[in-house]
Amino acid sequence: MNSFGLRFRFTTFGESHGKAIGCIVDGIPAGLKIDESFIQSELNRRKPGQSDITTARKEDDKVEILSGVFEGVSTGTPIAMVIFNKDQKSKDYSNIKDIFRPGHADFTYWHKYGIRDYRGGGRSSARETAARVAAGAIAKLILKEIGVEVVAGVSQIENIEAKSFDFEYAKKSLINALDKEVEQSQIEKVKEAKSSHDSVGGAIVVKAKNVPIGLGEPLYYKLDAKLAEALMSINAAKAVEIGDGVEACKLKGSQNNDQITKDGFLSNHSGGILGGISNGDEVVAKVWFKPTPSIYKEQTSLNIYNQEIKYKLKGRHDPCVAIRAVVVCEAMMAIVLADMALLNMSSKIEYLKKIYKVNN
Amino acid sequence: MNSFGLRFRFTTFGESHGKAIGCIVDGIPAGLKIDESFIQSELNRRKPGQSDITTARKEDDKVEILSGVFEGVSTGTPIAMVIFNKDQKSKDYSNIKDIFRPGHADFTYWHKYGIRDYRGGGRSSARETAARVAAGAIAKLILKEIGVEVVAGVSQIENIEAKSFDFEYAKKSLINALDKEVEQSQIEKVKEAKSSHDSVGGAIVVKAKNVPIGLGEPLYYKLDAKLAEALMSINAAKAVEIGDGVEACKLKGSQNNDQITKDGFLSNHSGGILGGISNGDEVVAKVWFKPTPSIYKEQTSLNIYNQEIKYKLKGRHDPCVAIRAVVVCEAMMAIVLADMALLNMSSKIEYLKKIYKVNN
Amino acid sequence: MNSFGLRFRFTTFGESHGKAIGCIVDGIPAGLKIDESFIQSELNRRKPGQSDITTARKEDDKVEILSGVFEGVSTGTPIAMVIFNKDQKSKDYSNIKDIFRPGHADFTYWHKYGIRDYRGGGRSSARETAARVAAGAIAKLILKEIGVEVVAGVSQIENIEAKSFDFEYAKKSLINALDKEVEQSQIEKVKEAKSSHDSVGGAIVVKAKNVPIGLGEPLYYKLDAKLAEALMSINAAKAVEIGDGVEACKLKGSQNNDQITKDGFLSNHSGGILGGISNGDEVVAKVWFKPTPSIYKEQTSLNIYNQEIKYKLKGRHDPCVAIRAVVVCEAMMAIVLADMALLNMSSKIEYLKKIYKVNN
Amino acid sequence: MNSFGLRFRFTTFGESHGKAIGCIVDGIPAGLKIDESFIQSELNRRKPGQSDITTARKEDDKVEILSGVFEGVSTGTPIAMVIFNKDQKSKDYSNIKDIFRPGHADFTYWHKYGIRDYRGGGRSSARETAARVAAGAIAKLILKEIGVEVVAGVSQIENIEAKSFDFEYAKKSLINALDKEVEQSQIEKVKEAKSSHDSVGGAIVVKAKNVPIGLGEPLYYKLDAKLAEALMSINAAKAVEIGDGVEACKLKGSQNNDQITKDGFLSNHSGGILGGISNGDEVVAKVWFKPTPSIYKEQTSLNIYNQEIKYKLKGRHDPCVAIRAVVVCEAMMAIVLADMALLNMSSKIEYLKKIYKVNN
Repeated sequence: MNSFGLRFRFTTFGESHGKAIGCIVDGIPAGLKIDESFIQSELNRRKPGQSDITTARKEDDKVEILSGVFEGVSTGTPIAMVIFNKDQKSKDYSNIKDIFRPGHADFTYWHKYGIRDYRGGGRSSARETAARVAAGAIAKLILKEIGVEVVAGVSQIENIEAKSFDFEYAKKSLINALDKEVEQSQIEKVKEAKSSHDSVGGAIVVKAKNVPIGLGEPLYYKLDAKLAEALMSINAAKAVEIGDGVEACKLKGSQNNDQITKDGFLSNHSGGILGGISNGDEVVAKVWFKPTPSIYKEQTSLNIYNQEIKYKLKGRHDPCVAIRAVVVCEAMMAIVLADMALLNMSSKIEYLKKIYKVNN
Repeated sequence: MNSFGLRFRFTTFGESHGKAIGCIVDGIPAGLKIDESFIQSELNRRKPGQSDITTARKEDDKVEILSGVFEGVSTGTPIAMVIFNKDQKSKDYSNIKDIFRPGHADFTYWHKYGIRDYRGGGRSSARETAARVAAGAIAKLILKEIGVEVVAGVSQIENIEAKSFDFEYAKKSLINALDKEVEQSQIEKVKEAKSSHDSVGGAIVVKAKNVPIGLGEPLYYKLDAKLAEALMSINAAKAVEIGDGVEACKLKGSQNNDQITKDGFLSNHSGGILGGISNGDEVVAKVWFKPTPSIYKEQTSLNIYNQEIKYKLKGRHDPCVAIRAVVVCEAMMAIVLADMALLNMSSKIEYLKKIYKVNN
Repeated sequence: MNSFGLRFRFTTFGESHGKAIGCIVDGIPAGLKIDESFIQSELNRRKPGQSDITTARKEDDKVEILSGVFEGVSTGTPIAMVIFNKDQKSKDYSNIKDIFRPGHADFTYWHKYGIRDYRGGGRSSARETAARVAAGAIAKLILKEIGVEVVAGVSQIENIEAKSFDFEYAKKSLINALDKEVEQSQIEKVKEAKSSHDSVGGAIVVKAKNVPIGLGEPLYYKLDAKLAEALMSINAAKAVEIGDGVEACKLKGSQNNDQITKDGFLSNHSGGILGGISNGDEVVAKVWFKPTPSIYKEQTSLNIYNQEIKYKLKGRHDPCVAIRAVVVCEAMMAIVLADMALLNMSSKIEYLKKIYKVNN
Repeated sequence: MNSFGLRFRFTTFGESHGKAIGCIVDGIPAGLKIDESFIQSELNRRKPGQSDITTARKEDDKVEILSGVFEGVSTGTPIAMVIFNKDQKSKDYSNIKDIFRPGHADFTYWHKYGIRDYRGGGRSSARETAARVAAGAIAKLILKEIGVEVVAGVSQIENIEAKSFDFEYAKKSLINALDKEVEQSQIEKVKEAKSSHDSVGGAIVVKAKNVPIGLGEPLYYKLDAKLAEALMSINAAKAVEIGDGVEACKLKGSQNNDQITKDGFLSNHSGGILGGISNGDEVVAKVWFKPTPSIYKEQTSLNIYNQEIKYKLKGRHDPCVAIRAVVVCEAMMAIVLADMALLNMSSKIEYLKKIYKVNN
């Protein structure tokens, strides 16, 4: 229940304000160079407190590898990674201890489990995504070996949409914006939300380049279906599309079918996936995020004694969760693709013979 | 790879024009009345050839239960169901045998596996969804025992969107339309596409009523993530949202958060899911489908010898796949919910004691 | 719960006297020649009614492939196989309908599920092993591609043990005996049991030749552990050993360690497995079977109304289940090895590069 | 590959001389009191250096819980536990660095992965079993809630076998011996092996008391088959039996069938399992262990350059691995039973209704 993937399989643990969060990544082929500084740099991209438009909370997010790597190389055994939480006991949670914050998982965890680690959201906190990013970094290292690269950026904040996508620009943008032209308006939307003690939604486009044909296992481990699952499992994600997705519904078949030529597909409405299998074109997905549920305006809710209350949240929170989710989207897509690349290795009997060096 | 679900787990087999399609449904608690006529009636809802706006192809789709049911009741052993294909050898496929039809899985199956059952799409054909519907019918029987009901209907055809949703009306509608007011315009869109030898996309809204609080297993078996996977795995699905989904991205937190009162949530922007767990409200999802890739207009493509070709498809195909996908969406949501209901039984130690009749 | 294996994964269904039994085999690489007559010949080896020392019951056991094979070759999609039961409705079960037969699963199925298909043991009947043999035949076809062969034979009946193993002889022996010298005494034991309305236990040795080094996935998918599971899951199996097994416990380390030379291991006490991974030597296991619980002597038991009863079983049953289990043991070992061979393909990053044709 | 169990699921990581070993235990129902001192006391039972007949190596084995427990109670989220290795960098491995020790996994890991963490066996070291014991302690806490207790002891050292089993005595015995009468002779065997620079094998009997009827999921998650897998996966285990196991093969059906009365079974040849499901009697298994492969006598082997060598091992090792494996056997049986207890909760539709409080 806390694991994802079949051949590239990671399992995460940890609560937002417990001792530590982390993960075990299993199924990594032996012989992969594990660049620890790359893993750390990916975590740094997710880290809060980097600008005045993400949360001001400081987290160190220093990752430590506990196993599975020997002399800098993967050994084929599980790679455990841990990030210890700093000062996890120091905070005062009395104001939210007994309250179900609207839009949060407080209410559902309480009813499902009869108990709740109320410190900063506990297990349901977006802090857990740091473990995904660490696992995703390893997935990226695998993909790099076969030439695949995953990139992402913010396409939309509230109703301000990117008109064009520049993934290189997104890397430098304060809000990971894909479109320089609308970046400033998007920033305004975030600041506006923040100053009005509110929050705002956003959307991310994530894509993979140079994906080999054949990734995806029909019919219940399709590439698009697993991407949808992986991306929808990110905190605050509410919708996922592949390729033209929502817009494809408004097209005619003659408009939406990607014609095939010797030089490849003439268009990429499909987002690089046909019948659940990659077709060699870029794999493209979009994820929509709801506005951060943590806002400072007065809200109506219940406490655990079933009493109605009015309350205002305190603390420091991102006014737009989508911004820091960019690297998480990349991580989840990388994990799915790495898993699929490993699974696809047994698609043909000739591959089996190749590995076991049988001639005939 | 051809299985879905953990506790309610089904595995499907079969090609569109092979001997048979079918499934094994595993994990069904013993003691469930298996109403065979209900299963058949669900299959009949999916059956082609029922009107002039779905495919004219006739399929009998008579389901046969081979195991797991004794004297009308489930025994706890796997329920195998089979639907034999009629006349599967009679057709002539010479026109598509060597061709990769644009928008279809021909190209990817060929490259992934090096071989392709070209008869009517083989395994990638939407015919496989009959097996899902059969499994879904059993999921519905389980859900019925705990009062949960799943319904669905067509909300959109091309750019014609439903303004209100009437799930009762959808059951009677020729195109499973949710909104009587726009139904006729939607039908026109389908007919127009058909008469111009083209096809058109659509969207379906599917929801579950009376869902208990607590279904969904964080963090990698979340209810929303598994619904996204389940629905995206349906042929031609290209986007999935939960609750307000795409629109939530344009909202402020203060607008999107569902306020909580003693009488329940004041709104349902969340689509009944918080932190990946059902909150007791209606679970609502929407799925967008691309237009049927099978069209009769001339298209550009390759054959398996890597030669560019122009060709026109023959045969009989639905001009809008979304229409018949309504019962498939219901089936997939029912399967996810039945699976989650079984999984949730071990969420609390008190449940364990209740089942094993331990007092303390 | 009715599936086995990760990459070579089969799921079985069916009750002894229901409509049919069968299986879906998933994960078969595309391009494998599926020799249907070989599958049938394997089933014939398991078939009852072949001599007067196995059950006199006649079963046809004609297997039919429903999917996954196109023009004689696997397509990478699930292979469904079905064996229809003949005359399943004709028998009279009134004498065992309400009774828990000692040594059988009647008692446990009844209490676990609250319902029981009492016809000939229902799901718990050894008839289900026909589905294993069908799946095992496909596993053998995969293994053949990499040169691996699995053989087995009866080593022991009651207290008569083989002194030497001749797997070729076992193929011709009426009781699949490994040792011609003791075969006749073993046959006597079976006949003796039969004539005294009793039954007798036995043991089987199963081994795989030419197994590549490296099969087995530590630490919880070890080759020896999965073999133990696979073999112990066969009806009536009560003990499993790898290599010297039970006897190894009585040895000193200096006696039991297999010394390693350039020409291979000097002995094979380990049964070809070190640390859960094949070492290139023959993989050897032994399985002990209890005597058939179906006997004709008077026994004490309960009926479903919790009344004590005395009863004598009727019908036709094997006096020694081990004899016909030989091909089942082969099937289960072949399935484990095929699964492990597929899993091992992603053990090294260099294999990944080889498949995806990346040079560096 | 490094996980075990379906509903009670644990995943381990870590190498013998890496930074840490540990595990994530997932699927624990919320509301379970997590007695940390009990977990530690179980680990202490496994700890080396406790007498002169186990290894003299000192390990602290202090377990730390990182997540999943809040105010002493399980929250339903994954419980991560870690044991940091002391002084893992200080040792000198130059004498075994390039050598394949006979009877060890060095040879197979090297060939499978092309790389090997040679420090003390790396991942294949029995040190990993500490993580199993930690997970097993939690399984025992769950089982305690439904009254089930798991106990074990040494039944055999070399050829000295226990004539009677006293599980209470085993707890106090220096070698966990089940039979006081033969304990001293067994100790002599160990000392003798040690003084001759050799090692010796042994066997363990493990049993569970008060097991409810109905645990075990046929046909491929049978209780006996999963116990066989779980126990065979322990380092140095070479054979497993259930109930009379090996001896059952020598019996007649009339001797081996456990007759059923109102007061229960008249015997327990079956080891408490029929058709893969617990029958309410004690669940009994036996595991045979090979002698420790680490011996100080000269041996023949290869190094990684494929050169034949003669070498003598140094360091400190248990002369009989079976002794310290007692608590590991208990852990593995407890884990299987806890998993089965959770799985069995959905065996009947009436249980579903009970949990969801549906009346009809």
